[in-house]
This record gives sequence, C-alpha cells and structure tokens, in this order.
Amino acid sequence: MSTGTAEPAAQPQAAPRRWVYFFDEGAGAGRALLGGKGANLAEMTRIGLPVPPGFTITTEACKAYQAAGGVFPPGLMEQVEQQLARLEREIGRRFGDPERPLLVSVRSGAPVSMPGMMDTILNLGLNDQAVQGLARETGDPRFAFDCYRRLIQMFGDVVLRVPAARFEHALEAARQRRGVRFDHELPAEELERLVATFKEIVRQEAGRDFPQDPRAQLELAIRAVFDSWNNERAKVYRRIHKIPDDLGTGVNVQAMVFGNTGPDSGTGVMFTRNPSTGARELYGEYLPNAQGEDVVAGIRTPEPIARLKEQRPALYRQLEQVAERLERHYRDMQDIEFTVDRGRLFLLQTRSGKRTAAAAVRIACDMVQEGLIDRQTALLRVDPDQVARLLHKHVDPNAAVEPLAQGLPASPGAAVGAIVFDADEAERLGRDGQAIILVRPETTPDDIHGIVAAQGVLTSRGGMTSHAAVVARGMGKPAVCGCEALRIDLEREEFQVGGRVFRKGDMITIDGATGRVFAGQVPLVEPELSPEFRQLLEWADAARRLGVLANADTPEDARRAREFGAEGIGLCRTEHMFMGPERLPAVQRMILAETREEREAALAELAVMQQSDFEGILEAMAGLPVTIRLLDPPLHEFLPSLEELLVEVTRLELEGGDPARLEERRELLRKVRALNEANPMLGHRGCRLGITFPEVYEMQARAIFRATANLRRRGVDARPEIMIPLVAHVRELAFLRERIEAVRREVEAETGLDLKVRIGTMIEVPRAALTAGEIAQVAEFFSFGTNDLTQTTFGFSRDDAEGKFLHHYLAEKILPENPFVSLDAAGVGRLIQLAVADGRRVRPDLKVGICGEHGGDPASIAFCHRAGLDYVSCSPFRVLIARLAAGRAALEEGGSEGGGGEG
Amino acid sequence: MSTGTAEPAAQPQAAPRRWVYFFDEGAGAGRALLGGKGANLAEMTRIGLPVPPGFTITTEACKAYQAAGGVFPPGLMEQVEQQLARLEREIGRRFGDPERPLLVSVRSGAPVSMPGMMDTILNLGLNDQAVQGLARETGDPRFAFDCYRRLIQMFGDVVLRVPAARFEHALEAARQRRGVRFDHELPAEELERLVATFKEIVRQEAGRDFPQDPRAQLELAIRAVFDSWNNERAKVYRRIHKIPDDLGTGVNVQAMVFGNTGPDSGTGVMFTRNPSTGARELYGEYLPNAQGEDVVAGIRTPEPIARLKEQRPALYRQLEQVAERLERHYRDMQDIEFTVDRGRLFLLQTRSGKRTAAAAVRIACDMVQEGLIDRQTALLRVDPDQVARLLHKHVDPNAAVEPLAQGLPASPGAAVGAIVFDADEAERLGRDGQAIILVRPETTPDDIHGIVAAQGVLTSRGGMTSHAAVVARGMGKPAVCGCEALRIDLEREEFQVGGRVFRKGDMITIDGATGRVFAGQVPLVEPELSPEFRQLLEWADAARRLGVLANADTPEDARRAREFGAEGIGLCRTEHMFMGPERLPAVQRMILAETREEREAALAELAVMQQSDFEGILEAMAGLPVTIRLLDPPLHEFLPSLEELLVEVTRLELEGGDPARLEERRELLRKVRALNEANPMLGHRGCRLGITFPEVYEMQARAIFRATANLRRRGVDARPEIMIPLVAHVRELAFLRERIEAVRREVEAETGLDLKVRIGTMIEVPRAALTAGEIAQVAEFFSFGTNDLTQTTFGFSRDDAEGKFLHHYLAEKILPENPFVSLDAAGVGRLIQLAVADGRRVRPDLKVGICGEHGGDPASIAFCHRAGLDYVSCSPFRVLIARLAAGRAALEEGGSEGGGGEG
Repeated sequence: MSTGTAEPAAQPQAAPRRWVYFFDEGAGAGRALLGGKGANLAEMTRIGLPVPPGFTITTEACKAYQAAGGVFPPGLMEQVEQQLARLEREIGRRFGDPERPLLVSVRSGAPVSMPGMMDTILNLGLNDQAVQGLARETGDPRFAFDCYRRLIQMFGDVVLRVPAARFEHALEAARQRRGVRFDHELPAEELERLVATFKEIVRQEAGRDFPQDPRAQLELAIRAVFDSWNNERAKVYRRIHKIPDDLGTGVNVQAMVFGNTGPDSGTGVMFTRNPSTGARELYGEYLPNAQGEDVVAGIRTPEPIARLKEQRPALYRQLEQVAERLERHYRDMQDIEFTVDRGRLFLLQTRSGKRTAAAAVRIACDMVQEGLIDRQTALLRVDPDQVARLLHKHVDPNAAVEPLAQGLPASPGAAVGAIVFDADEAERLGRDGQAIILVRPETTPDDIHGIVAAQGVLTSRGGMTSHAAVVARGMGKPAVCGCEALRIDLEREEFQVGGRVFRKGDMITIDGATGRVFAGQVPLVEPELSPEFRQLLEWADAARRLGVLANADTPEDARRAREFGAEGIGLCRTEHMFMGPERLPAVQRMILAETREEREAALAELAVMQQSDFEGILEAMAGLPVTIRLLDPPLHEFLPSLEELLVEVTRLELEGGDPARLEERRELLRKVRALNEANPMLGHRGCRLGITFPEVYEMQARAIFRATANLRRRGVDARPEIMIPLVAHVRELAFLRERIEAVRREVEAETGLDLKVRIGTMIEVPRAALTAGEIAQVAEFFSFGTNDLTQTTFGFSRDDAEGKFLHHYLAEKILPENPFVSLDAAGVGRLIQLAVADGRRVRPDLKVGICGEHGGDPASIAFCHRAGLDYVSCSPFRVLIARLAAGRAALEEGGSEGGGGEG
Repeated sequence: MSTGTAEPAAQPQAAPRRWVYFFDEGAGAGRALLGGKGANLAEMTRIGLPVPPGFTITTEACKAYQAAGGVFPPGLMEQVEQQLARLEREIGRRFGDPERPLLVSVRSGAPVSMPGMMDTILNLGLNDQAVQGLARETGDPRFAFDCYRRLIQMFGDVVLRVPAARFEHALEAARQRRGVRFDHELPAEELERLVATFKEIVRQEAGRDFPQDPRAQLELAIRAVFDSWNNERAKVYRRIHKIPDDLGTGVNVQAMVFGNTGPDSGTGVMFTRNPSTGARELYGEYLPNAQGEDVVAGIRTPEPIARLKEQRPALYRQLEQVAERLERHYRDMQDIEFTVDRGRLFLLQTRSGKRTAAAAVRIACDMVQEGLIDRQTALLRVDPDQVARLLHKHVDPNAAVEPLAQGLPASPGAAVGAIVFDADEAERLGRDGQAIILVRPETTPDDIHGIVAAQGVLTSRGGMTSHAAVVARGMGKPAVCGCEALRIDLEREEFQVGGRVFRKGDMITIDGATGRVFAGQVPLVEPELSPEFRQLLEWADAARRLGVLANADTPEDARRAREFGAEGIGLCRTEHMFMGPERLPAVQRMILAETREEREAALAELAVMQQSDFEGILEAMAGLPVTIRLLDPPLHEFLPSLEELLVEVTRLELEGGDPARLEERRELLRKVRALNEANPMLGHRGCRLGITFPEVYEMQARAIFRATANLRRRGVDARPEIMIPLVAHVRELAFLRERIEAVRREVEAETGLDLKVRIGTMIEVPRAALTAGEIAQVAEFFSFGTNDLTQTTFGFSRDDAEGKFLHHYLAEKILPENPFVSLDAAGVGRLIQLAVADGRRVRPDLKVGICGEHGGDPASIAFCHRAGLDYVSCSPFRVLIARLAAGRAALEEGGSEGGGGEG
C-alpha cells in the first residue's frame, strides 16, 4: 500500500479486548466493569483479607454476549483458560485432574446489588473420576459425593433447567430410606447412589447427560449466568428497583473452600451492625458443616452469630477484626459471606449491607461519631424515599391486639376504616368524608377511583407487584395484599376469616408496613422522630440551598407544617374553603346567579368566611410567606353531578312527582349541562374563571387584603402572596393583576395601611413556561404546578392515565417512571429549565418554586436543586423528607460520595 | 465645571424633538411617522402634483400625547405656529385675518388605513368676523356662511361632542322653511340664520360657546384628532383588523380649497381601476358644487366619474393623467380624493385602493402585463385570506330567485339546509348527516355545538361582530346576521318574513357573501378560478419552498385535492373509515370483545374493509405520498353516549320492560362507563390504544401493506407512509414501530415484495416536541398536529374554550388571535422550532410538516415557511390558498415589498 497518497491508513489490527481479570488485578477497575461482587473480591484481595483466589469475567463480556444474540465475544474463552492456568498454579491443583481436582464456584455479580436474582454453582470441576480422586485424597467419600451431588443438583437446576423439585424428591426419598432428618446425616453410599439418581434425572429431564468435561461445565455455567441476566425474575426485580436493563452482569470463578468438611468447618452470613436497629454489634447466622446455600435454603436452622462468642471465641474474634477492617475500609456497614474450611476463615463476599430506614439513620449518625464518615457522607447514606417510611402512622405497639390475618406488606402505613367491596361505593362514601378500607379479591384499573377514595386497600390475591400494591404505593396509601386467609364473597358483601364473618360497614384496621389485618378500630400512633433523625435533618438544613415550604389549606395544616420545619406555605388552595358544607349553598347561589347583583350578594356572604379563613392561616404562619392561590377548579365541581341529575330528572318525569320539584331539578340540570365540559381539565377554570367573572377573584383579593390589614393592626406579621392559577398568556395575568391592585388600593384607602404583596403565577401549562420571559414582566414569582404541567406536557390526564394505561406503560417499561410521582426531567423538566432561564433574564430576583406533588419526591427535589429553583413546596407530611432530600441534592452536586461503595 | 476629573460631563440640553413637517419636507419620512395620508401628501407634493400646501403633525406627537395622559409634548404648538406662518406666506393669507382669512382643514391619518374611523374638520379659521370678510372678498355670502355653518357643525360634532342629530334637525327645519330639497339651495340669509342657530345648539349642548379664536379652534381640533385614536369605533376597527393599538395617528393641516364655490367647482373620489372587477378604467363619483363630506354623507347623489368624459372632457383627461402618474409612481391601484376649485384640480389624498378579491387578482396580473410590477410583487399584492372568499360556493347567478330578506353578509359562502331553532337539535340532526341551517334571534356560547353541526347560521339580531358572525367566520361557515325582517317565534319553532311562515324542517338557502336569504333549495355553484388566479398560482408554485399536501380520508377527497394541486396526502385519518354505518357493528364488537379471540374475529372483518379503503385512496394518489394515521380517537366515541344509556336504563328499570333488554343495556352501560373518561382529550387514545391493544394497529398496518402490495402488482405506484398519533415518549413509538415492521415482514413474506415505507409520528403533545431529538431516532418524519398541540400547550380544549371563554378573550384582547385559527408563534411555534432543530440535528433528512387546521391559514403557513418545515397539509379546499400563501411566504422572506405603499 502506498503511503504517498492521502488515503486513510488501514486500521491497525485491534488488540483483543480484555474480558477477564484475576482478583489481584481488578482492584480499582470498578463495579461497573467487574460487578459489585467481583470488585469487592478484588478489593478484599488487595487489602490482604483471606479470599480464595479466582478471577472475574467482566460485565462488558456479558453485554457483548447479549448484543451478539448469545455468542461469546472473540477471545473470551482463551482468556478464561489463561486465568484458569494461573489459578491452578496458585492452588497447586489442576482443573479436571482425576486425582487432585481443582474445584471452583461460578457466581454472578452485577454492578448493582440484586440479591437472590442471579444463580450460583458450587463444586464445579467434579466428574465421575474426580469424585473418586477427591474421596481418596480427603479420605472422606461422604464429603466427596456430597460435593458431587450438589454440583449435579445446582448445575441441573440452573444450567439444564431441570425442575428443582425432582432433585428434592430424590433427596427426601433418600432421607426417608435412611430414616434421617438432615442431608448431612446421609452416609457416603447413599450419597453415591443419589449421584446416580441425579444423573438419571438430568438425562430424563434435560435429554442429555450431565457433562463430564469440567471445561464444558465451566463454559455452560458462564453462559447460564449471562442468560440469567434476562430471566423473568431478574427483569421484574430491575423493573421494581428501577435498575437499567443494559448494565450486564459479571461472572466470578473462584477456587472452592469447603464448609462441609466436618464439624470445624461451616458457613455463615454476617452484618457488621444490626441491620434492623443499626446497633453496633455483629449480627448474622452460622451453620456448621455446611455449604453456603444450606443457610439460604433454610433446611437446617442456623445459629445466631452471637453464639460463636462462647462456642468459638477465636473465630468470633477473627470475625470482629474482619468486620472492623472492612468497615474502616469501606466506611459503611457490610454484609459478609464467609466459609470456615477446617478451622480456617475465608471471605467469599462483602457488600454494603441493606438496612431498615431506622438502622440507616442510626448507622449514619453513629459513624459520624466514630469518625468513620463526615456529616455530608452521613446524609448521602440515608435515602429519603426509604426514610419516608419512618413517617407513616403505625399500629400502637402497646395495643393488646391480635391480628386476624397476615398478608403481604404491600404499601406502608396503617389505616382504619369501614369495609367496602365496591369501588363506586367507596368513591361515594369517600366523597362524603367516610373513612373506608376497600376490600377486593384483587383490583383492576376500573377500581382506581375507589382506591383514591379509600384510606387503605386490602386484597386476598396478588403479590407485592400486583395492581393494588403498585397503585397504592404510588399514591402513598397503606395496602395489605395477597391476604389469602380472607374468603371474600362479593355477592353477599362479606368476608370470612378465622371463622368470623365481616360485613360491609364493619370496621377493620390494616398495617401495610407489616401486612397485618385487625378487627375493629385499633389505635394508631403518629410516627416519632429519633434523635438521630433530628440530627440528620439539622445537617441537611445546613447543607441545602432549596427552601422547603408546605402545601396547606387550613390553620391546622399550617401549624403542623411549621412544626415539621416548613418555611412558609407554597400553596394554599382556596377552593377547599369553598367546599365546606356550610359554604356550599352560598357557592351554589353564586354560580347559579342570573344577574351580577345576585352573584355579588352570594359573594358577599363568602367574602366574610374567606376573610376569616385567611386570618387563621396567615396567623398560623406569621412571619413566613403564605402563597394563596385564587380559585382554580371549574364551577361545576361545586354542583351535583350531571349523571345523578339526569337519572333524577328521568325518574321524576316517569313517576310524575311534584311538578315544582321537577321544574327546579330540570333547571338545575340545564345549568349543570351548560357548565358541563368535554374536558374539564382543559376547560373553564383557573384564571379563565377569574377573567370571565372578575368579581370572584376581586372578592378573594379583598378578603386577603382585609385579613392582612386586620392581623397587622393586631401586630401579627401576615405575609400573604397572591398566586394566579393556569395562566397561559401574559395578558391574562396582566388583566387580573390590574384588578387585584385596584382592590388593594381600595383596602389601603379603607385602612390606611400599605398592603403591597407579591403577585405571581402558577406555571402549569406549557405555554406559560415557553413564554416565561413575557410572563415574568408581570409576575413576581413563578410556582411550577407540576401536576397539571405534567398532564399537559404529556397530553394525558392523571385520572385517565392511571385508570386506563399507565400501569401497563410502567409494566412494559414504555415509561421508566410514573411521571406523576417522579418529575419527567427530559420533557417537563426541560420546560422548567427554559422558564427559569427566561424568567430570570427578565427579572433577576424572580422567586421560583414548585408546588406540585413532586415537591415531596426526593428525585424531583434533586432536579429542582439542579434547575436552580428557590424552593419546593409539598404536603406537611413530606416536609421532613424534602428537607433531607434538599440537603442531599446540594451535597450530591458538590460531587460527594453517592453512598455505599468503594470508600 | 472641572473637566480635569473623570466625572461624566453634564447632559447637553436635548434639542427639542421635531413634531411637525411641511408637506415638501416630509417626502421619505415614511407613513409610520407621518401617517399614510401625511406621507402620501408629502410624496405627491414632491412629484409635483397639485396639492394644496400644508403640514403634518407626526404620530410620535400623538403617542407622546397619549403617554402623557392627554398633554401636548413640549414644543408642539410652537412648531405648529412656525409651520402655520410658512403656510400663510405661501398662500398669501393670514390665519384669523378678519378680511382675507386663511382657512385650513384638519384631518387625521394613521400609518395604517382606517377609513371612516377618524374625523375631519373643514374650514377651520372662520369666526363671526372672518365669515364677513370671506363674504366680502368672494362676493358670495352664501358660500361664506355655508363654510361657516359646516365648520360649526363639524367642530361641534367632533370636538365638542354635540349630538349630530341636533344640527341635522336644524338643517332639515331650514330646508322645510325654504321649501328646498338640498342644502346648497339654501340662500345666504337662511345660512346666516342657521349659523346663529348652530352656535346656540353648541352653547346648549356643550355648555360653552363655539370658540372664536382660530388658534383655539386649531388646538382643540388637533386634540380631538389625537383623542379620536382611542374612540370606541377606532378601537373596534383595530380589533377586527388586527391593527396594533400603539401606532398613533398623524394630523394633517392643509390650506382649504373649495368645491362649493359654484358650478365649476366640485369634489370627487376616484379609483384608478375598477375596485370590484379590477378592470382598467377610472371609477368613482363626482359631486359639483360641494365639499368633500357631502359625497360621503350621501345627501345628494353624486354622478359616476365616467360621465365627466362627456360633461367635462378636459377635467376627465386631467384625472386620467393624474391616475396614470400616480399608478406609475406607486405601482398600485390608487383611491384618490380631489376637489375642483373654480375649474382648478387639487388632489387632497391618495392611497392604495381597497378592492375585492377578484379585483386584487386581476389588477396584480394586469400590472405585470403592463410592466408596472414584477411577478413577485403581484403575488405579494394578493392576500390569501381575502382570496379564500373566491373559493366559497355561491348562489347560482343564473337562478331566477328573489331573496326573502336581506341581512348582513357576516361570513361568506352559501348554504342550503333545513331550518332548526335549537342548538341541541342541530347537533343531533347534524350528527345524523342532515344539512341544517341554525336559525336564532342571536347566538350565545351555549349554541356553539349547534353552529358546529350546521351548514350555516342565520340570526335576526346582531351585527358583523356579533357572536354568531365571529364564530361562523372563525369556523369558515356561511352566516347571515342581523336579518331583522325575520320574526322568530322560538316557542312555536317558526319564523315569519314577508307574510310567509317558515317552520322547523323547511328548507332555506343563505348567502353569507351578500347577506341574502332565500326560500327553499336554491341551486349553488362551485367557485370557478379565473385565468388570472391560475396565473398567480403558477407564480406562487415557482416561488414557494413549502410543499402543499392535503388532509383527505376518501378517494373522492384525494382526487379533489389532487385537482387543486396537492402534492400528496399529509393526513389520512383512519377513524372515519370506522364510522361508516356498515362498519360500526364490527367496530363495536371489537370494543366489547371479552377475549382476544373475539376481538381478533371482529378485527378480521374490519381488516378487509380497511384494505379496500387504503387501496382506493392510494390509487387516487398514485405516485404521491399518502400519510396514513393509525386509529386516534378513544374507543367510547364508537359507542352510544353515556348520557343516553343512563336515561334509557333508568326508564327501563322504572317501566319494567323486557328484562333481557334491560340486562343487555345495563351491560353496555357498564362497558361505556368503564371506557368513560374525565378528560377524553387527554385519555386513552392514539398510540396509547395502539400499545394496550396492539392487534388494532397490527390489523391496520397489515391492511396498508396488503393494499400496497396489491396495487403494486397492478402497476400502481402506491406510496403509503405510516403515522403514529399522540406519541409523548420515544419508547411508545419504538414499541409500535417494532410491531409494524414485524407485520411488514410478514406481508413481505406472503407477497415476495419489498414493502418498506416511511414510519413517522405526529408531534401533538408538548413532550414530543421537547424530546424531538430522542423521537427522531425512531421517526422518519414529524407531522405537527397543531390542533392538539395548541390545546395541550395552552392547556385548554378547543370545544370548551370556544364554548366558554375564548370569545370573551378575543373581545378583551387577552388573546390577540384565536390560536386555533392562526398558529401561536410565541408558544406553540417555539415548540415547533425546538422540535425541528432537535430532530434535524439527529436525523438531517427528517421530513417535517404540519397537518393541523393551521396548515390552511396564511399567517400560519408563513410561520411554517420561516420555521423551515418541508410541507403543510390542509383540507383539499384550502390547497389553493396554501399554495398562494406558501409562495408569498417565500417572497416575503426575500424582503420584497409588502404590498401597497411607497413603491
């Protein structure tokens, strides 16, 4: 080839990629490449802990395998062969040697911990010859055949997909034949016979022999691990835990050590602290003379690790040292697997330990005390989503009550209510303010409105990912699912449990955190905050830049929010003040008024009530801002439903009742029909009402200004801000602002006070965000109403989506998240970013916040922090979570450790 | 002041702004500054035409006056005084001179022509003394007192707001007293008496005397012109014609010439071509011995200008010369006001002449022939919105029919239908496919659904800006309003007119272009295109960059669109194919299916019909792209309405009819209720249906591929493209695309043909636009569905908005335009621009178009051109307009003349 021309040079032959790392080569390569288990094995090897040698096949190899449709990438098996040769040299045994065989374990390990999802094979390398050699070498044929039958069993299950029950039945038969209770009591002859039986089972079920070539075993095992990344369990786990599908898993091949060689051998799992309470103590279980999977399988009951302190004090001390060493290294609580092989301790795995919310809080604080981590790291260790569970109501632990039944703890929190079996009825009673528990065999999207209306949900069928469970968690409602002891009879509207019958209307209590169901009204207690939790909140407050305000409509809510640390009210909805039973008549008179005079008379009645509402809430929040949103919902929400009226009028017509009543109802029907809208979400509401009926907003503004004046005269520092909902065009806001300012000047003239307040707008339709530069010329603050903004940006209404297709979308991963729970950064978030930038360009001191439900969601709060918002506003109950999340968001931006990892 | 320091130098005393220009100084200063009238007077002066001298006060002065709350800007009156001094020198008379007074006219002139909106005062400068001087000087006291009484009358009306009727009554009384018919027949004594009477009227009505000081007259007159910018008529005119409120008006002060000095004087208005047909001939009216306002007032009947050819050939020749001179100068048809003062011709005003659509087309083409303008200018002279009127049906001019009555021509086009008095009934009958005319005393927002369903609207009350007129024009529906001869009796459902009675169901015909109402079914004719129109379309096609496609769902529509020049189908809605009465049963079976098998059986039936639908439309558009949108509307649209079922079931329950029937209806009600949605616009429709019921889209895709295969085998060049509606997230599109491609491969396997087609998406929710970069990875084209995109961007549904508040918003100028008619550039347009940029970045050959109703709106088409779209798609009927508008948009971008102006 000539180099005299400008043609590109030929590509150099690419060096084959590296797919395999020996444990002592992998330190620092990271969990993304090696998986969590592989990375930790490499790390422990590096710091000199006793880890049996081995090597890791990278997640890249897995991804290449998946991408090629199930074909190993070039060079992979050659590199495995090279590393296997090194392993043979280090151990001094040969893989496949009929006399002194090297045995290995093969285990998966993904970058993100997915416990129980992936599969393990032990004792790989044995075959009909090597088992004899192992028996001769150890002088322990029982041990050798036990290892071999375990290999055939696990390999058969995991690689050859032989139904696990077939092996279990054969084992059970052997135990019965020998009259023993446990596998380890089976003699060598029985185990040898079992090996023959197991091989026959494999032949029958898989249609092939158990492979005698150890290299074939290894290759098939690696393939099985790769394939298991996409098994159904793994996919479901990832879906539930929001783990991306494209991480891939590593494969760890490690020299076997044996916990089943006799009474001074054994296997255990151990947490370096109590994962339930967070107390600083070794916590776990140990099973003598067993291999790892025996502990998990629960065939024999293991002993608490604390017992080793007396029984095997030297081992216990060694474990304590290992625990301290690992905690100092990883600066986090560890979950360790270990094996004792003839008295010698080997570590097989370590990882950050899962813990309860309470333990997470305590451990984080303790570790700061111990100097292991700093405050910021402590904060980053506590997941606000998880901590939210600490804040649910629960059943009073002092109440002497026995549960009726036990179901799955599907959605945390406890709830008390009357039994209702029908979603429509639930909705009706819920609207009337009754506390109810919706009880169904299972729920479907048709029941959503009933779930919305209920205090909690109880189902007799379905698991943690059933419709009821997913929907209830999404709504933050308590749910107990799959409570199979319940025998529900929908026709008779009753259920039986434990010989008792419960009928519609009977009271029950459910505890979604534990899955328990109680008869009657069990006392509930409000959650309590531990001192450690308060400590963390203080650190979060010191770190955060976002303000945390609350959404509250009543003085009680305002006071509660303030106790939780809210720095004001970001959303005070005035429509709730219109809904009270003593007010509704005046509201309806206002709506049905035929003349401006009639309307104004009704408004005058309401004005008095509104003023006292505002005085109450402004006083409760004295010294802090209270953002009052003027009337938002469409007027027909205050009138009887069209459907009900239609049925009533039809009945009256046919039954020929009181003609005056019929006429009156017909007239109301006509009015309701006139107000009826095809799409009320997109209809005549918000500022559109304010513009077509200016006297409503003027009444509200007057009530706000008069309330403020009254309070100030009493020395109360009232700080209202007025928020106009649903603005799409700057002129809507300008039109209303002008009228509100005119009312202000009136009240100023009445009172002689200066009553200037901030006037701003919700940004809750895309056009408002897109024209924020114009709107900011008139608005002094923006509050993103992300519920409506999400609905309009996606073009689907929450009710309809959750009732009809959102569940399906999430299950099929068409949407990665429920956008009503966690803010959609790519779409809705982009609008927010545009609006903040354009708004601040025009008005540098523009105050910008968010007051949708996302204001209490940690991931959304992190987005708000990054987007440069000034505050989030959420329900009083979420204020604590928001403070924590805001603190974390600030720290994460600083680039601190993301929690649990390399240390 | 020291200059040794860095302190800023003191601001120099600003030179006073120039507020006033003498006519010969103003040439080139432009209409924005001088107003149209002032600029043209300056221009005519410059080119040496006979214009009485004078000066113009600028629009800036008017704006400064308005901004200061009605105070003249500093220096204004001084500059007026200076220019007045020059005028006195030029004319050789003094303003206020009691012997030889200088008289002036004061006239407004805004930058944009607003005929009839502003006010004029003639003969300013007269008072009790000067009128005597003028009488002596001219020897014509009749003339002098006629001038004076006109001044008092106009000044009284315009400046002092004396009711005009009072002067008219006094004049009428004088004519009666003298027994004459016309004012100019009144003798001098009577006029002198009338002056006294008029002065008395002023004193009574205005509470002050008519000002004798000519300078006070002038100042008050200028003030009145400035104030008139904001009078109600002017505001309404601007609103209707979309003229900004902040242009201001100029004031022209000009030496008087007199058309009322005797038989060789006179006044006239003249178009340089026929404004109705466009023919090249002088067209206008002349009134001897009169002042300008006499022509307009219509007190005496003026003569056609053509008569002058014989009666006063020299004058006529002079007018011809002036016309040609002005046309050559302005390169446009002119509308001229002139006065002949004792045989001498003076031009008082020229402007581009208003013309009908037909005239606009003809004049533009003729002027190209004559070498006055080039083709591009010709195109820019024709307003596509106006030309659209040429394309409405009209009453056959050969039909020998007499109108029943005459109303206002509120919305062009003719319509035939049965009389209906109730909007609900109109909707019901319209849904059944009946042609109806909605007849109401007037309409309200509650009638919108009836207007939508009707062929046309007829009202007995209300003007050109009444609700019915505005709404009908917005919808492009014929309407006759304010037809006061109709006596409507809503109770009896009939109307009387001219002694005849018309009842509900009787046929009538309305012609919205002329305002005529006919009994029965009058033959209508389709619009015809003149050769000039075809010529313009050819020029537009040569200029435009945008493709023009049509929205069409049937082979007939496709053929029609093709005849109009559509280059393909941009939107073929498949749901209309589901609505046919022979198909609905299968569609309903599909929806109500309980199992997948039942559903598939129903789909199989539909598949056959769909395939033949597609074959028909693809064949009609052979060789051109046909963009087929898969099923879009929610399923409940194919079922009976919830309301109707509810009433039916209630009736059946109470009347105790056939229990099987009741059960069946109850079941249907249950199903309809389950499908019912709070906000169907935002519900389970579009691709959401396609994802939850994949078999529906698969059936449609199969029908498309099979139709294509069939046609191609017959040698027909079928070019379908498949469009997925309502995508909000790229994964929706990816999920469906995968399934459609699988169907394609199936049909390819069946047929052995390569059936690859473009697959793309509607961009009709904001999130799709915001994430266009992701979506373009899967979509080969974008089609902006601007109807839904406008609804979701604004957060209001079209139906609800138009029914409830949009009318109010437009009237209050809260929205400058109906965003469903003319694309909202700031909001929706910004999304489109974002999406085009992001999409093309990812896929440079992405095809991008628009298929909402905006695709036929000229202003929106201009936006699409600027935004760089590839095509617009509109109803077949709008294709001609779109071609014209697309051509104009391309030329406007080139910076060519915007039509009518300085030349």
